[in-house]
Amino acid sequence: MAKTNPGRFFEDYAVGQVIDHAVPRTVGAGERALYHALYPMRHALYSSDEFARSCGLPGSPLDDLAAFHVVFGKTVPDVSLNAVANLGYAEGRWLKPVWAGDTLRSSSEVIGLKQNSNGKTGVVYVRTRGTNQRGETVMEYVRWVMVRKNDVDAPAPETVVPDLAEVIDPTDLVIPEGLNFTGYDFTLAGEPHRFGDYEVGEVIGHVDGVTIEEAEHMIATRLWQNTAKVHFDATFRPDGQRLIYGGHVISMARALSFNGLANAQMIVGLNGGAHANPCFSGTTVKAWSEVLDKAETSAPGVGALRLRLVAVSDASVGELKDEAGKYLPQVLLDLDYWALIPV
Amino acid sequence: MAKTNPGRFFEDYAVGQVIDHAVPRTVGAGERALYHALYPMRHALYSSDEFARSCGLPGSPLDDLAAFHVVFGKTVPDVSLNAVANLGYAEGRWLKPVWAGDTLRSSSEVIGLKQNSNGKTGVVYVRTRGTNQRGETVMEYVRWVMVRKNDVDAPAPETVVPDLAEVIDPTDLVIPEGLNFTGYDFTLAGEPHRFGDYEVGEVIGHVDGVTIEEAEHMIATRLWQNTAKVHFDATFRPDGQRLIYGGHVISMARALSFNGLANAQMIVGLNGGAHANPCFSGTTVKAWSEVLDKAETSAPGVGALRLRLVAVSDASVGELKDEAGKYLPQVLLDLDYWALIPV
Amino acid sequence: MAKTNPGRFFEDYAVGQVIDHAVPRTVGAGERALYHALYPMRHALYSSDEFARSCGLPGSPLDDLAAFHVVFGKTVPDVSLNAVANLGYAEGRWLKPVWAGDTLRSSSEVIGLKQNSNGKTGVVYVRTRGTNQRGETVMEYVRWVMVRKNDVDAPAPETVVPDLAEVIDPTDLVIPEGLNFTGYDFTLAGEPHRFGDYEVGEVIGHVDGVTIEEAEHMIATRLWQNTAKVHFDATFRPDGQRLIYGGHVISMARALSFNGLANAQMIVGLNGGAHANPCFSGTTVKAWSEVLDKAETSAPGVGALRLRLVAVSDASVGELKDEAGKYLPQVLLDLDYWALIPV
Repeated sequence: MAKTNPGRFFEDYAVGQVIDHAVPRTVGAGERALYHALYPMRHALYSSDEFARSCGLPGSPLDDLAAFHVVFGKTVPDVSLNAVANLGYAEGRWLKPVWAGDTLRSSSEVIGLKQNSNGKTGVVYVRTRGTNQRGETVMEYVRWVMVRKNDVDAPAPETVVPDLAEVIDPTDLVIPEGLNFTGYDFTLAGEPHRFGDYEVGEVIGHVDGVTIEEAEHMIATRLWQNTAKVHFDATFRPDGQRLIYGGHVISMARALSFNGLANAQMIVGLNGGAHANPCFSGTTVKAWSEVLDKAETSAPGVGALRLRLVAVSDASVGELKDEAGKYLPQVLLDLDYWALIPV
Repeated sequence: MAKTNPGRFFEDYAVGQVIDHAVPRTVGAGERALYHALYPMRHALYSSDEFARSCGLPGSPLDDLAAFHVVFGKTVPDVSLNAVANLGYAEGRWLKPVWAGDTLRSSSEVIGLKQNSNGKTGVVYVRTRGTNQRGETVMEYVRWVMVRKNDVDAPAPETVVPDLAEVIDPTDLVIPEGLNFTGYDFTLAGEPHRFGDYEVGEVIGHVDGVTIEEAEHMIATRLWQNTAKVHFDATFRPDGQRLIYGGHVISMARALSFNGLANAQMIVGLNGGAHANPCFSGTTVKAWSEVLDKAETSAPGVGALRLRLVAVSDASVGELKDEAGKYLPQVLLDLDYWALIPV
Repeated sequence: MAKTNPGRFFEDYAVGQVIDHAVPRTVGAGERALYHALYPMRHALYSSDEFARSCGLPGSPLDDLAAFHVVFGKTVPDVSLNAVANLGYAEGRWLKPVWAGDTLRSSSEVIGLKQNSNGKTGVVYVRTRGTNQRGETVMEYVRWVMVRKNDVDAPAPETVVPDLAEVIDPTDLVIPEGLNFTGYDFTLAGEPHRFGDYEVGEVIGHVDGVTIEEAEHMIATRLWQNTAKVHFDATFRPDGQRLIYGGHVISMARALSFNGLANAQMIVGLNGGAHANPCFSGTTVKAWSEVLDKAETSAPGVGALRLRLVAVSDASVGELKDEAGKYLPQVLLDLDYWALIPV
């Protein structure tokens, strides 16, 4: 089986290494429709080309999270095939919208390595960039994962832990060229709430819930060409369950957040995120959000909200962690992002 | 949770009120493919651009029922979020085909109100119009639903029950511009039966059946941005079942009707319809049709059939109702529509 | 029920008969996205328009197997509605790529008939051709099926068994116009292995597995407008199981073969194939391949591999048949095809 990809192990990474990930992908009208079929997406800017034009764009871009999933999916065979856990995200920024017909590629640079004290695993930090066919970077983010060693006797690398921003400074957020919310139609968008109506500390329970099916998360995960066995092969885990791709929960929660955050149209920054507990088929995903911060931007009529997006397996809006600082079992996702909203 | 949408209650409606529904939607090649993937659609005019051109159209329009679902889906947050039951449809007409790239919006006018004698609910009648980005009405229909009161002490409105046509007069049907069946290719369409071959009173059992899965009806219902909780959240009903969107059953039955009505290509009128019994995952849907009427049209080679389309949860073609006039438990749908067929 | 299609029975076929199958189909961006959502497809030439252009094509064609499924699906109502078994394929060739916007049709010529000794069934051989809207043949293949007689007293036809090639001579393979692998990017394609790296007799286990769900195989099979009841109606078989369309297993196995055969980009010949055992929902499909032969082609940088593709319901790479020559129960598919790969 020498021709198949065994994935990289911890000792195969070196700081400074750049990995060009395989299989570029052209996205278009089909991906757009599938994204609306798989998640209860209603944000008007992604649903209607006309609405997007009224906001100064040439049409609806591919959903920001769909772009993320495509870029992320390509990294799986090189970064997380032998991963034990996906530990975190930081410094994620969307730099250019992705349009129908664009072809995306990804590459990752290893920016940190730290062997664990057990000598069997280590943490790998990569900064991943997605680029389009014009060579423009459409997004970038840092991700760190715990990866198995293949040879436990391989020497530990020098420990390098990158210095990562806790939060992206709002002045570093990139606003899509032309974006203008001064003529924003709140009736068509679905809610009247604007930048000024949200207060830091405010918590919004998003009411709706979706019970997840195996077929749906597999269709979604394949669409992003994320082929990690654990999402597809029911014989892979001893319990016979397929682990749902964490990005599926992110997209589901984001779509549910429409109800209360319909005008938080575009995601431009990913400050951090934790897949707090694994998610399996049959779970009913609900979501709540907390306003963490607010910032003005230089674009006309455009403000930014820093939001915590929490997905839970039951309805409770409430505590995230127990006294020991461990996520409560019903918490699936704890995401921290910046979104653009009309002022 | 003041920012989320609680939906309108019976006392929130007034006759004459016009509600502009949120979230316009651009449809295209993705929605077309998904419609063929979700239903066993084979009507040639929607499957082949070439066939549609041979019938005088510039290409295949979006399936008539897909257009209906998009227009209908937008009304759910404003009309039926607190609905107890979807009671009926009338005076539905398709006025313009929907083309790939079109962006659809909906608005509804309240045309009737009648509080029920229990004082807790009332019937709301709305006339909904779907429009495209050129401001043209692509379809319109009347729908009435039973809606809960939030405040049972709210005064009853003056009762207004609209005078609705039992059947759309065939001279009021709108034939798509350019439609011409004089060169119709019956071999490519799949059946030789034309207008003259169908007789009023004739009943056609459509043979095929499809067992419905949770993933499929949720994918379909989300595609139309119909986000009613009851279709998605298995924890919402005490029995843990997700109620299947009635429109999913309509599309399934219509697709099954190809076998015997392959040439009933375009739906142009919706005279009425009842979702006779709820449908749940695991049901095997079959269908039969009855020819209720026939009419000529002014378009070359184009006739109209008035058809009853019945979806059932078993194979029997037979009685619809018991002696008390109540739908038998196996009947899921009883729809009355006009379709165009070559003469 | 005279208007519905009862399908053809064995006595309804005659050698030389040509059947023009119904319902032409336009394919495009939606089918492309769905194909990637339904199967773990990663072959770069079909994933990226840019990659396809770097190989001399104007963009990514529709996946070869998707084209096959569309052409095949149209034949079902005329060829296999009353089939007892799908017995084999031969002489399959892809002659022209299918592009977004193309409209496909199929027709079949009956090239052989052989009544079985039981007098109740017979074998029908058809050569099926798929054509596009320009009248060009995009693919052709021979298929033979066992079909029931309706009238067991109908006289047996003269036995005609066509002389079919065991293997397509590689000089008869048609290379898509313009294909050129001299500038092939192995990094983007995902694996370094080229023509010269594969040896006849080499066996490759493809590692990954996918557990199949009812919703997925039905969505796929409907997309190809293959409406055979047995795939959709859980009440059709006494055991309540839906038989999965054999083509779904072919596409799943081919997609899984990426891991080890990422550069076997285009399928151009189908030498033969057997659906060795039925496949049902819940099966975890894995795959392995054997290199059966190698050939040069006249196109720049393009070689051809003859590959056996085996789908199994467990992980074992191993024996296909028992001592009596019968397929072992875990074998789902045994396919023999030619693929193009950079030299």
